[in-house]
Amino acid sequence: MSLAVGVIGTGVMGAEHARLLRDATSGAHLAAVCDADPARAGAAAKGAAVFTDALALINSDQVQAVVIASPDATHAQYALACLAAGKPCLCEKPIAATAAEGLDIVQAEVALGRRLVTVGFMRRFDPAYTEMQAARIAGNIGAPVLLHNIHRNAAAPAWFTGAMAVTNSFVHEIDISRWLLGSEMINAQVTAAPGGDPMLVTMQTDKAEIVSTEVFMNATYGYHVHAQLVGRAGTVEMAAPTRILTNLSAAQSFGFPSNWVPRFTEAYRLQMQAWVDAARAGQTTGASAWDGFVTTSTAEQIVAGMGNAGMGNAGRITLTYPPRPALYA
Amino acid sequence: MSLAVGVIGTGVMGAEHARLLRDATSGAHLAAVCDADPARAGAAAKGAAVFTDALALINSDQVQAVVIASPDATHAQYALACLAAGKPCLCEKPIAATAAEGLDIVQAEVALGRRLVTVGFMRRFDPAYTEMQAARIAGNIGAPVLLHNIHRNAAAPAWFTGAMAVTNSFVHEIDISRWLLGSEMINAQVTAAPGGDPMLVTMQTDKAEIVSTEVFMNATYGYHVHAQLVGRAGTVEMAAPTRILTNLSAAQSFGFPSNWVPRFTEAYRLQMQAWVDAARAGQTTGASAWDGFVTTSTAEQIVAGMGNAGMGNAGRITLTYPPRPALYA
Amino acid sequence: MSLAVGVIGTGVMGAEHARLLRDATSGAHLAAVCDADPARAGAAAKGAAVFTDALALINSDQVQAVVIASPDATHAQYALACLAAGKPCLCEKPIAATAAEGLDIVQAEVALGRRLVTVGFMRRFDPAYTEMQAARIAGNIGAPVLLHNIHRNAAAPAWFTGAMAVTNSFVHEIDISRWLLGSEMINAQVTAAPGGDPMLVTMQTDKAEIVSTEVFMNATYGYHVHAQLVGRAGTVEMAAPTRILTNLSAAQSFGFPSNWVPRFTEAYRLQMQAWVDAARAGQTTGASAWDGFVTTSTAEQIVAGMGNAGMGNAGRITLTYPPRPALYA
Amino acid sequence: MSLAVGVIGTGVMGAEHARLLRDATSGAHLAAVCDADPARAGAAAKGAAVFTDALALINSDQVQAVVIASPDATHAQYALACLAAGKPCLCEKPIAATAAEGLDIVQAEVALGRRLVTVGFMRRFDPAYTEMQAARIAGNIGAPVLLHNIHRNAAAPAWFTGAMAVTNSFVHEIDISRWLLGSEMINAQVTAAPGGDPMLVTMQTDKAEIVSTEVFMNATYGYHVHAQLVGRAGTVEMAAPTRILTNLSAAQSFGFPSNWVPRFTEAYRLQMQAWVDAARAGQTTGASAWDGFVTTSTAEQIVAGMGNAGMGNAGRITLTYPPRPALYA
Repeated sequence: MSLAVGVIGTGVMGAEHARLLRDATSGAHLAAVCDADPARAGAAAKGAAVFTDALALINSDQVQAVVIASPDATHAQYALACLAAGKPCLCEKPIAATAAEGLDIVQAEVALGRRLVTVGFMRRFDPAYTEMQAARIAGNIGAPVLLHNIHRNAAAPAWFTGAMAVTNSFVHEIDISRWLLGSEMINAQVTAAPGGDPMLVTMQTDKAEIVSTEVFMNATYGYHVHAQLVGRAGTVEMAAPTRILTNLSAAQSFGFPSNWVPRFTEAYRLQMQAWVDAARAGQTTGASAWDGFVTTSTAEQIVAGMGNAGMGNAGRITLTYPPRPALYA
Repeated sequence: MSLAVGVIGTGVMGAEHARLLRDATSGAHLAAVCDADPARAGAAAKGAAVFTDALALINSDQVQAVVIASPDATHAQYALACLAAGKPCLCEKPIAATAAEGLDIVQAEVALGRRLVTVGFMRRFDPAYTEMQAARIAGNIGAPVLLHNIHRNAAAPAWFTGAMAVTNSFVHEIDISRWLLGSEMINAQVTAAPGGDPMLVTMQTDKAEIVSTEVFMNATYGYHVHAQLVGRAGTVEMAAPTRILTNLSAAQSFGFPSNWVPRFTEAYRLQMQAWVDAARAGQTTGASAWDGFVTTSTAEQIVAGMGNAGMGNAGRITLTYPPRPALYA
Repeated sequence: MSLAVGVIGTGVMGAEHARLLRDATSGAHLAAVCDADPARAGAAAKGAAVFTDALALINSDQVQAVVIASPDATHAQYALACLAAGKPCLCEKPIAATAAEGLDIVQAEVALGRRLVTVGFMRRFDPAYTEMQAARIAGNIGAPVLLHNIHRNAAAPAWFTGAMAVTNSFVHEIDISRWLLGSEMINAQVTAAPGGDPMLVTMQTDKAEIVSTEVFMNATYGYHVHAQLVGRAGTVEMAAPTRILTNLSAAQSFGFPSNWVPRFTEAYRLQMQAWVDAARAGQTTGASAWDGFVTTSTAEQIVAGMGNAGMGNAGRITLTYPPRPALYA
Repeated sequence: MSLAVGVIGTGVMGAEHARLLRDATSGAHLAAVCDADPARAGAAAKGAAVFTDALALINSDQVQAVVIASPDATHAQYALACLAAGKPCLCEKPIAATAAEGLDIVQAEVALGRRLVTVGFMRRFDPAYTEMQAARIAGNIGAPVLLHNIHRNAAAPAWFTGAMAVTNSFVHEIDISRWLLGSEMINAQVTAAPGGDPMLVTMQTDKAEIVSTEVFMNATYGYHVHAQLVGRAGTVEMAAPTRILTNLSAAQSFGFPSNWVPRFTEAYRLQMQAWVDAARAGQTTGASAWDGFVTTSTAEQIVAGMGNAGMGNAGRITLTYPPRPALYA
């Protein structure tokens, strides 16, 4: 039977999730959408039921599983409602606006005794990252010692503050570095350019690996994500993110997109398919509630640690977390 | 409503099509399979109906659309049966064992007055090729003048004869070159190495473009397909077919697969999705019966022209076709 | 002792040879220059003796070895004069305006009983080509079966005729293909675009290798030379001709030069150093008079064969040469 | 007139410098060599005069300029002797075993009132680095904000201690980063893997640029140097360090050398030519005595700062230098 999925929030990401469910996912269909803006909801619905109350959607008999793509501040509330309803949910990152709220979700899930929440860290489904993780696990490059991440945006929105480079952008590297290495971050140190952009964040893991990340919100030339994993015997890194090369006007070139959507289109599709497959099988996939909490907590601790030194250039920030519940072992 | 698809033939390609329908295609499901070997059919069915008679599958009420992946010699017969039943079919290449049989299908479809047959030239859905075609159409590189194709297999099967390099492998370049350029081939000239492998085929199109193709059945190092389109202002070509690069053992490298499946996995999936989407909309996509006929005819004419000169090294072979029916305008 | 070298002709190439001798070659110095234009000669001389009579330069006691960079029509005459004077010469390609004149030089050298003439096919000293030849000789890629050459100029000069694409540009591929493979060309077949540009030339060697060359005089985007050698076990090809990559304005790119000089600067320098080293040791290096004759003869035979079919699209042209003298064994 | 150059020390580097002067440099010749081992000196001399006393070589009438390639501990003494003799010298890095000795040379040169010392930081002549610096100066990439350096050796010699990764290897990045950016380093922070290898060094410049360097002495897979300069509008980085690509055994690859010599062969040659050209013109080129002192001082301060924290993981180390003398403005 096809999984009936409801999507909360039909902005850019929510509309894309709705499209994936409608047109590009096996074993599922778009059953309902919800948005504060009824016109926008209707446009995304294309025949699916339209709700204006997210909790009503979550609790509707028409909906078996939920995608949460509403504003960040509402994520925790809806994730908790999904847990209460016993329905799988795919929650856009962040899992919650604060680490404390994120921990509430973890605790609710632990109390429930089974995992229902997936946090939409879609990079875990990007083929370049999955091939890198597979190469790490295969072992040819030896024990990992260093991970170089680069995360460049063409331009930050006007409302972007310094802390958001950490909480909004760098969180992706926190999550993907944990996942690539299978490690936990134990400290972080931030060096920032004047104005706070770019910043270079150096973390160390519980296996003494070094994770170095350039976060550049206004890199101008385009959206560009790169990673190179260095092991004791060799390295593995992303190839040039293109399928074609053009010789034109005295140059050979390939293009960068202006934002993350074209770069991660395939990752979003694969994430949705994997989440649907898991939901139908009574399982979960992707980043767990625990992963979502840890990532938010790490970002929060880094922002707090940076605070005293203004825009970065702080000392080494020790990162701590509560014990990992057995549910996430 | 989900499209009920039956798959005829559950060998390597048929089983893969069945898997795509079952697990990776939106808007369709695997309704039935058919194979001369009931055990193999059952393994691919995973719950779908199992037929031993292909015609019965085609005519079954349980089946709305058909994938033909049986031995080449049977393609024409089943495609005709699909036309008779008024059901869309996706027929693995070649459309028929001979051009004459291929033309029968074209004529049957013309008599029917609507297109139902898609020939599985999956490269038309490969992202690298579609980006190249889009670049050609966008016009930045100017009018096309030359297309360089490279088609290398690691090793030809033992049963491979010289003519099969043309009819089995080079047909892909015939089709994709026509599609990339939007042109028809009007002559061909073959230069072959001793033993016939590799061969270099030079064709000219009705727009005076030159199409050069290396076909190397025993290239040893791996399966490798490349294309570069040269226009009057610039060129567009495939980038290195990899997502990751490895530094190991005194070298930087990426891997080639041993056969075409990993290279074109995504093309097969996209082809199936596009075919299902089209079938549900009462339309067709991909290579038409006419395209399938022309490709088979071209290969047949080249093989005939090569014959007098043994393994290639023939003079220029003029290629002719009957008029294109209006149905394929 | 430093070798005293005289340079005949101080146009673009002659001035560059003079510069190399003055500033960038060990064991030699610029002793004299000669040009019909005394002002241009003086500018290139920078203190070296200035001649207006090339034969006087060749026969001067101040000159031990000669670089011939005068107009093509004069090459043969000056090369013969160098042979008469018993002085090594580095003659810009072509060795002579006609194959018959080229053969005169070969015969004069054979009569002399020792080799003094080097023809300036500088690609033989280009590191990318020398690494490709070394890879061929090392044998890992197996016996060569196919060589793909690409030779693109941004734009042909106004005075360029169709035949000059062969005699002026394609000669480089004739020479370098013979040298890369260690083979002789035995036939050629030309397929040309309307207007004759680009053309695709397919040759076969005495070892049954296939040599395919795109010659595009007006490729617009830049000067670009590429080669890929295909062996029975693998291939070797030129890497992207750049040392740096730039991310800028929504693209990653590297630049192509507008002509051959930047691409082959290092080849010219290495050729000059090797020629000086050889001359001081009483030896020769690079393309011999025989190589120069064969290349000119091949180009001449191709142009003659193309003639009947207008701009290319001729049948296969059989290439023949007189026996190779023992001096060039 | 050809510059008569004497080479002190005929180990690996000294023998290479001798060879360059003998065979590959215009305007100079190898006049003399000196080595504690007379047999080794004789082998490198190939006819040049052989000294056993370095000071005798420096002061010999046969020698106009001196290359110092003796053991590190002797560099300062010989550089001072060259200054005393008024002869240009090209001194292998480091300029001195300690910053204090390096400062002695600076002061001696200042007292002399003219620059005679070049420190052999050959990367300044590597074409990839010079093209990167030119790109920075051209300004297209905007103001530099971040420089990513990677410095990997296949394996450290047995006698290598942790501090030597800084004083022997990382010094190259100290120098080249100063030169690429035209900036001075004002602080450094070291994060090291267990055992001290690899280490990640983060520096900040007097223009608030961030310089990040991975120094990995036992990277196993080969010798590999990479740099990417990030500006406010774009980036420039080294392309793959190869001229050819090989398809073989299921992979496309290019090779890394096992040590720095093949990677920087061209840089050493260009450095020698530039140094000879400058010496003949009464000028200097390359890294000055001041640059040599600053680099040694920076490395010394970093090692001292790391000391308290064992193998790296120290806090931010403030870097200070005496005022730059006007001679080096």
